[in-house]
Amino acid sequence: MDGGWLAVVGLGPGDAAMQTPQATTALAAATDLVGYMTYLDRVPHRPGQTRHASDNRVELDRARHALDLAAAGARVAVVSSGDPGVFAMASAVFEAIEHGPAGWRALDVQVVPGLSAMFAAAARLGAPLGADFCAISLSDNLKPWPLVLHRLTAAAGAGFVVALYNAASRARPWQLGAALDALRPVLPPGTPVVFATAVSRAEEALLVTTLADADPARADMRTLVLVGTAATRRIERPDGRPWLYAPRSHPAAS
Amino acid sequence: MDGGWLAVVGLGPGDAAMQTPQATTALAAATDLVGYMTYLDRVPHRPGQTRHASDNRVELDRARHALDLAAAGARVAVVSSGDPGVFAMASAVFEAIEHGPAGWRALDVQVVPGLSAMFAAAARLGAPLGADFCAISLSDNLKPWPLVLHRLTAAAGAGFVVALYNAASRARPWQLGAALDALRPVLPPGTPVVFATAVSRAEEALLVTTLADADPARADMRTLVLVGTAATRRIERPDGRPWLYAPRSHPAAS
Repeated sequence: MDGGWLAVVGLGPGDAAMQTPQATTALAAATDLVGYMTYLDRVPHRPGQTRHASDNRVELDRARHALDLAAAGARVAVVSSGDPGVFAMASAVFEAIEHGPAGWRALDVQVVPGLSAMFAAAARLGAPLGADFCAISLSDNLKPWPLVLHRLTAAAGAGFVVALYNAASRARPWQLGAALDALRPVLPPGTPVVFATAVSRAEEALLVTTLADADPARADMRTLVLVGTAATRRIERPDGRPWLYAPRSHPAAS
Repeated sequence: MDGGWLAVVGLGPGDAAMQTPQATTALAAATDLVGYMTYLDRVPHRPGQTRHASDNRVELDRARHALDLAAAGARVAVVSSGDPGVFAMASAVFEAIEHGPAGWRALDVQVVPGLSAMFAAAARLGAPLGADFCAISLSDNLKPWPLVLHRLTAAAGAGFVVALYNAASRARPWQLGAALDALRPVLPPGTPVVFATAVSRAEEALLVTTLADADPARADMRTLVLVGTAATRRIERPDGRPWLYAPRSHPAAS
């Protein structure tokens, strides 16, 4: 192995000021960068470093390629947006290790966490995740759609704030609308819903609306959708941008 | 207001390499630091900066004090461990704003997100949060205990990985045991359970066990507890430390 290693590195939501020094160090020490081309484009070029860019659909192939490189002695950074452990590359790497050559289990593998999109979005809005919350991927590429709906309604019904990842894409245009429809019998119509697009990047856009008014067409593949609860508070401000927060106390608490 | 502001700053789990540059910048620009003394101790001292340390029980008073200082022109950093929006100070600040003087709504308030403990813990373990997951506070100081149990069993029953915050403290010694007991009828006995204590700090300790064997006495107030699902995979390694990961695919997916 000769000093090879693999680090699965979270870049955070996009703003370099939200990328940890640990991630920056791992990226600088790598001989090879592997990842979706859009994420690789966020990493400054360094002389002598090789880039292996791929499209967004081949996570397991990309993971195996990265492990092959590390096994051959390369120092490999697999880059992910946000946190690599949240609907991103880390699971694919470990899936590849489990089903790959036994030697891969002895490789020096490290996950370097990053700020996930939902925390960057929540920070812009106030503290909407300040109570019990969950994260659900709306992608039905890898799990059956009825299971997605079951988790969504179970969580919202139990009072969790819900963060929806993979809310929309060209290949999955109807899922967010169906998800919002499934939530309408469960939550009050005034429940806050947020469309947080490209948070911390130049094209950032935040839309605060309600479950009654939420238009799924406002989401694209850069959008995280947050769905509050009946308890979520909205504070109006002079500049027109409201704060949202989850109260720390439940009304029924003594 | 004269240039005053308030930033609610997430320090991350403890290791300075996991604190974002944005957080470091906000801490350096502050005239006043407000927070629980244990967290303030993590911030390097700077000449001219005033520290307002308090114990861990007076979040709302601390938030009001910070807002008063900012309204009087101070540049105030309210420090939180992890992410300030996850069971931490941000909700208290917005609760204080909602119920405080109208002028507080016009204050320059910013939340600076940080790496929450569950992502630092997950990164050490592999990718146990790589599928749908939720975060639940086991504290019943602010919500009724039956609601905690309802959320816990609803989430685990629907297949969410569960991260338990505020799992144990001297004042709340029995809740984690009761929570694990409530999960035993819902999840298989071999479901992975992790006790992740003080992740990224000198006293870090990770214990990977199962729901059948999990001993609540292994948790203290620095411990995050992760409960996997029936689908969580465990990969044995030559050094004895297993990897855990959540498969990206659900078995029922086509």
